[in-house]
Amino acid sequence: MPIAGLPEIRPGSDLAQCVVSAARRAAIRFEDGDILVIAQKIVSKSEGALVRLASVKPSPKAFALATRLKKDPRAIEVVLRESRRIVRSDHVLIAETRHGFVCANAGVDHSNVPGHDVVTLLPRNPDRSAKKIAAALCKRTGKRLAVIISDTFGRPWRLGLTDVAIGTAGLPVLLDLRGTRDRDGKTLTATVIAVADELAAAAGLLMGKSDGFPVILIRGYRYKASNEPASRIIRPAAEDLFR
Amino acid sequence: MPIAGLPEIRPGSDLAQCVVSAARRAAIRFEDGDILVIAQKIVSKSEGALVRLASVKPSPKAFALATRLKKDPRAIEVVLRESRRIVRSDHVLIAETRHGFVCANAGVDHSNVPGHDVVTLLPRNPDRSAKKIAAALCKRTGKRLAVIISDTFGRPWRLGLTDVAIGTAGLPVLLDLRGTRDRDGKTLTATVIAVADELAAAAGLLMGKSDGFPVILIRGYRYKASNEPASRIIRPAAEDLFR
Repeated sequence: MPIAGLPEIRPGSDLAQCVVSAARRAAIRFEDGDILVIAQKIVSKSEGALVRLASVKPSPKAFALATRLKKDPRAIEVVLRESRRIVRSDHVLIAETRHGFVCANAGVDHSNVPGHDVVTLLPRNPDRSAKKIAAALCKRTGKRLAVIISDTFGRPWRLGLTDVAIGTAGLPVLLDLRGTRDRDGKTLTATVIAVADELAAAAGLLMGKSDGFPVILIRGYRYKASNEPASRIIRPAAEDLFR
Repeated sequence: MPIAGLPEIRPGSDLAQCVVSAARRAAIRFEDGDILVIAQKIVSKSEGALVRLASVKPSPKAFALATRLKKDPRAIEVVLRESRRIVRSDHVLIAETRHGFVCANAGVDHSNVPGHDVVTLLPRNPDRSAKKIAAALCKRTGKRLAVIISDTFGRPWRLGLTDVAIGTAGLPVLLDLRGTRDRDGKTLTATVIAVADELAAAAGLLMGKSDGFPVILIRGYRYKASNEPASRIIRPAAEDLFR
């Protein structure tokens, strides 16, 4: 269910407090095991991960790319600063972020940001952000809550974006079923489910984009508490068949 | 919620009837708009999309690949027959299926199949299968139901598998938010959400693998009825930055 009625989140907003207050107004009582999926955008805003384009001096590389892609060179410069490498630059920049996520524009985005001159960056350390928010939520509610920070990423081969986990606290990211047996007694050999991504995707169905439900509560999913970070989901380069 | 208590599905099983009967035994009443997510495996079984490895004569290419990958050449032969092209062959075969899906082993799988000598193939035309099942379900229940046939695919860059839609009937596959406005009035330019995949992912959280809930009911997701096929989600080669 969405936690409706959040205020506009600004740099310095106490996100956990905003969520707890909105839940209280909506008569939602948290329970042990509840999972809060929080859109990256409001985490970035609360952390002040914003850049005013007027303050950006594009490098020659940014100018060259911007000319080719017909984009704002200042926005391209911000993408380059957030990137470890550019994976593809065709009509869109696909970048590997400094965290290791591969996504369009390294997560730099101008939607749902007040003003036409400001872009958001991904949180510097989304797992740390998730842990901080989860700790504050647990403290304020007295409940054991898990947090997923989600963003909406494209992917190769299939059209459309899906919501994925970029930061997590309190729940497993990968559910390893290898070694368990199927219904016929055969050992499963390749089944590691990306449960944090599937939870983010489920929440994404309710988030919408323009209608503003950046916090979704998931209740009833059974999991073992875990400290596994979402960064664990990044496929090591050596194991990645697609590099 | 899972539709528990399905019988073992065999070639010729009336899948829609099995689902309706299991739902009745579980006191689940279908409602207009309900979405049934059905694991590919039982659709393939009901359609007899099974191959007995003893009947397969591997080609020289299959033998060569099997030697390199240390796999059964007969299983590799089946993968090659199901494939339009092999995308990668390292420790695992990543193939583009004849439908255009990119996944491990072209969807050929030996888990949850009785006997050690039998593999399942993906349904020949999963959209047609979904339409057929949806029509039978609607006829038997008198309700407007949508169907997603899901499978569990890996993906580049991120570890773990997620459930995706390979066949659909009655609901949109992609939700195009381009042209709508965000909270601040800016037009969203790149937001097409893969809702069928997100619904499949949500259902995947309940399917498990070995504990056998191959049919999940999703209720309460609002959508416009649509005839958009899941094949629509296959990214056209010309638009795919990752080829």
